[in-house]
Amino acid sequence: MTENEFGEREGERGIALPEHFDAGLYFIGRVATPWRSRADCPKNSAESDILCTISVDAPYAEGLKELGTCSHVIVLYWMDRAPRHLVLQKPRHYGETRGVFALRSPARPNPIALSVVDLVAIDGARLTVRGLDCLDGTPLLDLKPYFASTDAKPDAAVGWHAERARR
Amino acid sequence: MTENEFGEREGERGIALPEHFDAGLYFIGRVATPWRSRADCPKNSAESDILCTISVDAPYAEGLKELGTCSHVIVLYWMDRAPRHLVLQKPRHYGETRGVFALRSPARPNPIALSVVDLVAIDGARLTVRGLDCLDGTPLLDLKPYFASTDAKPDAAVGWHAERARR
Repeated sequence: MTENEFGEREGERGIALPEHFDAGLYFIGRVATPWRSRADCPKNSAESDILCTISVDAPYAEGLKELGTCSHVIVLYWMDRAPRHLVLQKPRHYGETRGVFALRSPARPNPIALSVVDLVAIDGARLTVRGLDCLDGTPLLDLKPYFASTDAKPDAAVGWHAERARR
Repeated sequence: MTENEFGEREGERGIALPEHFDAGLYFIGRVATPWRSRADCPKNSAESDILCTISVDAPYAEGLKELGTCSHVIVLYWMDRAPRHLVLQKPRHYGETRGVFALRSPARPNPIALSVVDLVAIDGARLTVRGLDCLDGTPLLDLKPYFASTDAKPDAAVGWHAERARR
């Protein structure tokens, strides 16, 4: 296959994905944000204080019971417009080739994105949160309580990113 | 539908899931752990210091480039044996009914589990990590670098859990 066929930029590499899926997902709600194009989205959640809303579909709404006692929530959502074949990527704002698993790029074999959000309010099946950076209308996959005991690693380091900041 | 049909315990509630999936997943590798049954698994990752291995399938292996510079990795994996219909659950060790989205139970509409692990070593397409608590052979969905700037919330609280600890 040629590079053009895969739509890669120089320094990127795509693979042929399997012909069949191994498991299936249900979209359980939607995320509402002010951003209508990828160029509008903040580069990451730390760059925005905007309040966004998450609507959980009616059949799943009972699943929110006691989530309101949590200060922070892990949101999993589906990057439905992202290509899935790029194992090596060269994001424009970094300019170096890295593996997809070393990046938080939406383009990945399973485009499941993860954000840790501040839970500001719950009204019925609608959550108001701070800390999302995705497109308006993004499909919701899951919500989980954030446990500092297992999820918070304040001393964690991403070597390539720190190295870049030092230069 | 009757409760028996759903296989619920008292205080739990199941729903009828949609007939069709909205999106599909590829299994991109496997997790190897010492635990062969759910009863053997530690209740959460903080309860175990055991080293586990994650094997990434060959087509995706290039995606690991520069992941070795990360101290901590977010692992997403698929709880392939979990029921998906239980929106209200009553875990045996808690004994109270809560919504699925307020719990880290493997039983959820999209049984995607998340663990933050210490990356101990990478050898080719095989990672040695600390911090997993899942069954041996669990399918791998994704690996992401853990950024303390957006992912670490050391002051986060889960109200229902803290309340329980105080009693």
